[in-house]
Amino acid sequence: MAAVRPGPDAARRSEPARRAVLEAAFELVGEVGYPRLSIEGIARRAGVGKQTIYRWWPSKGAVLLDAVLALAQGGEGQTAALPDTGDVEADLKRVLRATAQELSDPRIEGPLRALSVEIELDPELAALYAERLDTPMKDLKRERLKSAQRTGELAQDLDLDLAIELLWGPIQNRWLMRSGPLTPGYANELVELALAGLRA
Amino acid sequence: MAAVRPGPDAARRSEPARRAVLEAAFELVGEVGYPRLSIEGIARRAGVGKQTIYRWWPSKGAVLLDAVLALAQGGEGQTAALPDTGDVEADLKRVLRATAQELSDPRIEGPLRALSVEIELDPELAALYAERLDTPMKDLKRERLKSAQRTGELAQDLDLDLAIELLWGPIQNRWLMRSGPLTPGYANELVELALAGLRA
Repeated sequence: MAAVRPGPDAARRSEPARRAVLEAAFELVGEVGYPRLSIEGIARRAGVGKQTIYRWWPSKGAVLLDAVLALAQGGEGQTAALPDTGDVEADLKRVLRATAQELSDPRIEGPLRALSVEIELDPELAALYAERLDTPMKDLKRERLKSAQRTGELAQDLDLDLAIELLWGPIQNRWLMRSGPLTPGYANELVELALAGLRA
Repeated sequence: MAAVRPGPDAARRSEPARRAVLEAAFELVGEVGYPRLSIEGIARRAGVGKQTIYRWWPSKGAVLLDAVLALAQGGEGQTAALPDTGDVEADLKRVLRATAQELSDPRIEGPLRALSVEIELDPELAALYAERLDTPMKDLKRERLKSAQRTGELAQDLDLDLAIELLWGPIQNRWLMRSGPLTPGYANELVELALAGLRA
């Protein structure tokens, strides 16, 4: 896997340029769509040279992935842990309601759909996505479910990876295939029904 | 919604041409990918005039949808009901194992991925897909779950649409995002875990 992010020193020197590139990519893909998104267009909007972009990212898909990653990290540089109040049902409902809201946000929906389509078409970008976003997110989900196993809320012999798919697969699929609205009520009911089979 | 299929009389007269077009579209998209699939290329491969295709289908996406639909219908002209042996777990495992195998078949995977991506990009094709394939399939799934409610295998107050998403959402999402292999064992475990929460 090619490095797609500058080392610590370079990053410190050029963080403003990096942020400008990611914001430009995010805005532009929402405006023109993925097929017409170009490194040239991103560079122009960000006010940097094309070479600056090519130095850090191998493709426009990789730029967009980092832009989405920056959003997921809320500018904090790392993805936040899932809430853990000791009530797994309430916590998961809160998380899935937030996911539903995020996926329905018109500002976020366009860039995320563009990235999803590109991941489906490009196995290399899919691998980068798995490494940079999907795997870290899955680790956090697994941690939260493990904690619920420790408190006895969830079954001890649960296949946690399968449980994660049962909780998040339906909402992601509904969004991808536009097969229904992502309301807070939907998120709540999905968690209730999935959890019914996962409990101790 | 534009009509995408000839009326009964026209269909009888031109069924061989229709089949040739669908087979050509299915083969070609596997060979050249969706972006390079064209009505012209389909017409050439099928040995029909371009106008014949334009008369019946509004776009290459609509042709591909019908090609996939013909596959789902196994040439019988209508989608088959789900097996109902009275054992909902065994029946669903059989269905999901077949789905896993189909989605992993290299001959089928290419055209299906091309169609999925196009559905995500094109809301009109998404509506056509919902009407022609997704809704009829969901009706069959709902019927099978209703039958299991009648025999007391599944809870009476179950939200069947949500139950369908819980059973089929994870496998569809795993396939779309290439996030894991679609093995018979995976299909079996998914059914077991999902059903655990759906039982009476």
